[in-house]
Amino acid sequence: MATPVTPPRGMRDFLPADKAAREHALGIIRQSFSAHGFDEIETPVMEDSARLHSGLGGDNEKLGFAVLKRGLSAADVASAAETDNVLALADLGLRFDLTVPLARFYASHRAELPTVFRAIQIAPVWRAERPQKGRFRQFVQCDIDIIGESGPLAEIELITATAATLDALGLTGCSIRINDRRILTGLLAFWGVAPESGERALITLDKLDKIGVAGVVTELDALGIISGGVTTADATETLTALGAGGWALGDSDLGTGLPPAWLDAAAFADLKALRAALPGVDLVFDPTLVRGMGYYTGTIFEIAHPDLGYSLGGGGRYDGMIGRFLGTDVPACGFSIGFERIVDLLGADAASADRAVLLVHEKDADPARLVALKTALVATGLRVRLEKRTKNLKALLERAGTAGYGRFALVADDTVEASALEFKALGA
Amino acid sequence: MATPVTPPRGMRDFLPADKAAREHALGIIRQSFSAHGFDEIETPVMEDSARLHSGLGGDNEKLGFAVLKRGLSAADVASAAETDNVLALADLGLRFDLTVPLARFYASHRAELPTVFRAIQIAPVWRAERPQKGRFRQFVQCDIDIIGESGPLAEIELITATAATLDALGLTGCSIRINDRRILTGLLAFWGVAPESGERALITLDKLDKIGVAGVVTELDALGIISGGVTTADATETLTALGAGGWALGDSDLGTGLPPAWLDAAAFADLKALRAALPGVDLVFDPTLVRGMGYYTGTIFEIAHPDLGYSLGGGGRYDGMIGRFLGTDVPACGFSIGFERIVDLLGADAASADRAVLLVHEKDADPARLVALKTALVATGLRVRLEKRTKNLKALLERAGTAGYGRFALVADDTVEASALEFKALGA
Repeated sequence: MATPVTPPRGMRDFLPADKAAREHALGIIRQSFSAHGFDEIETPVMEDSARLHSGLGGDNEKLGFAVLKRGLSAADVASAAETDNVLALADLGLRFDLTVPLARFYASHRAELPTVFRAIQIAPVWRAERPQKGRFRQFVQCDIDIIGESGPLAEIELITATAATLDALGLTGCSIRINDRRILTGLLAFWGVAPESGERALITLDKLDKIGVAGVVTELDALGIISGGVTTADATETLTALGAGGWALGDSDLGTGLPPAWLDAAAFADLKALRAALPGVDLVFDPTLVRGMGYYTGTIFEIAHPDLGYSLGGGGRYDGMIGRFLGTDVPACGFSIGFERIVDLLGADAASADRAVLLVHEKDADPARLVALKTALVATGLRVRLEKRTKNLKALLERAGTAGYGRFALVADDTVEASALEFKALGA
Repeated sequence: MATPVTPPRGMRDFLPADKAAREHALGIIRQSFSAHGFDEIETPVMEDSARLHSGLGGDNEKLGFAVLKRGLSAADVASAAETDNVLALADLGLRFDLTVPLARFYASHRAELPTVFRAIQIAPVWRAERPQKGRFRQFVQCDIDIIGESGPLAEIELITATAATLDALGLTGCSIRINDRRILTGLLAFWGVAPESGERALITLDKLDKIGVAGVVTELDALGIISGGVTTADATETLTALGAGGWALGDSDLGTGLPPAWLDAAAFADLKALRAALPGVDLVFDPTLVRGMGYYTGTIFEIAHPDLGYSLGGGGRYDGMIGRFLGTDVPACGFSIGFERIVDLLGADAASADRAVLLVHEKDADPARLVALKTALVATGLRVRLEKRTKNLKALLERAGTAGYGRFALVADDTVEASALEFKALGA
């Protein structure tokens, strides 16, 4: 064939073992979020191009896959070329996140939803990024969002449900790093950073882990966005207090130490309330936590794991966004777990192997008898695969073991009752 | 906003109750197919355009959504306009079925799969059809396929697994109509229909239910594709024998009656073997069953329900197709259940309502206390939603009942232990 048989660039096929692991994890996540009172919804994978490019998606808007209009003529195409408007050829696009579709869904169905709507979305998104290790052009996002709750109840429920879900997945040792955008805004105001330079300053601050206090101050100075008489020495002092084991960084007891003068008192009080309301969660205040998206307005959080240099998910409050398609303000807060990263950390579902059995039969065995045996075993709750005996039985059994089967039985020529089958462990 | 907040044309949003019903049914289907020894796989939603247009998809190829190449310049677009080649603007497309991706997947991963590979695919497909009642541009297909098994074991396992799945879904009274493409081919040969007119003749024959014997004969005559001295009277006689309560039509005992001379003996013997091997299935031989796709080579089958004028799924043997991307012949047989039609027939999951409870609280209740109560109840296996008390408590409870919640409790100002909560049925 002229075309390769591999999937499109940056996308993946999932073989049975991988698919089983993914579905197992998705089942746990779905069940856990649902138990905590969240309701799953689904939207189409495509949205109108105009909506996808309405400015809510940040940099991701540029990474969207565009879908060609149906029934385009050569004249339509020529016209798009003349006006240098390639995107006029597309009326739809694949979603690049689940937040833009959620905002559209909420605007469409608000009257049919509870006053406080707790949404689950578990679905793939697509981004035409340059493929690299661990980054794919199609990947699953697992988001929970609470719409219509302006108080800390939203954050408490989101963090509780997420922590419980990580537990249910068997991911122990995770902590939740937490901060508030208002604290970062206060810091920038103290440094005299103009509001229009705020996002740029936060991008620099976000590198603190990598380039250290001196690196951040040098970069901010080079950008020329610190003003109002604040010197690089002043900035170094503030950052050092924040980042070098100072009054609160990494301290799970938010009340200790002396908060600096620029700290947003309301945000600090909210964080203290969250700390008190989440006694079972390893909540770590990190005043240098930034999170990338510009739409956050309050609390922000991230899942940290002691063995990993990257976060396993995150979220925050974004009160300005959901209402954009409604024309009114609607408070909202969300938490997204990094499904692709998490599923890589999980082991195989060992519990299911014992219930999965192989019936090894001769090539010429009567199909009707085989299926009757199989059906009888399925009715007892087993998972049953028929397998033709090959010369190398050992290799056959090893392959089935890798595929998640735990036991096997040989079907003799005269076996007609399932009770006559003798099962052995595949490893034996 | 300039753009509407509805989903794209022909596509659907799923609200919580609908999504829950869909996931509940998908869970049953997935579990049932898996118990019968099938392994789920997943492929990306997009495939290379060239592969989607390689001729394996029949008429569906024309309905595919095409994905615009990334980074196209105005010059690229102008060039496509000049050569009148609109599709040159697309390098990828959304899959319109799960069979083309399965063939590509199998060609790519054959070495990693069992010799006889039993695949489950449960996933959405997209077709740019004119939207109409019950037909959507994004819909879920549930396919099982057995690749590498040329004998009747494949048909027996597929039909057994499908019948068990319909049972598990609570869809009683279904029968499986069965036929063999070789029987239809024998009939057409007997009528002197040239092989190149065979598909056209089958399209006419497929209308037997709607236009009757006379209608079919008139249409075949008008098409002029009956030759070799066969008269319309001959054709009427054969069809009448088939369609009007003749020797076998609608008869679940395939052995009775006298088979006509043109009947393909091998196909008839295979059908009798299937009948004998599937004692628990309501299998109905229907020698006028056609199935639309041209790629079928042997057995074909459809799910019929006594109350419905349309089938709930179907499939058959298609030995020529999977090997197309490999360059070798690989036997294959598949069965697809019509998920969108089936999910519409199923009732709500009543069993889950009793485990879903509402905690109704005052607006100013302490969030930390509420979440602690909720968490304690979740730990006992309940699904718990917090709900702010509104003036009209009755309306609130009714809405929650519709959303699948079965019980509620009022949280008093002094409730701190979950055991102090008194639950009542929502209907009471």
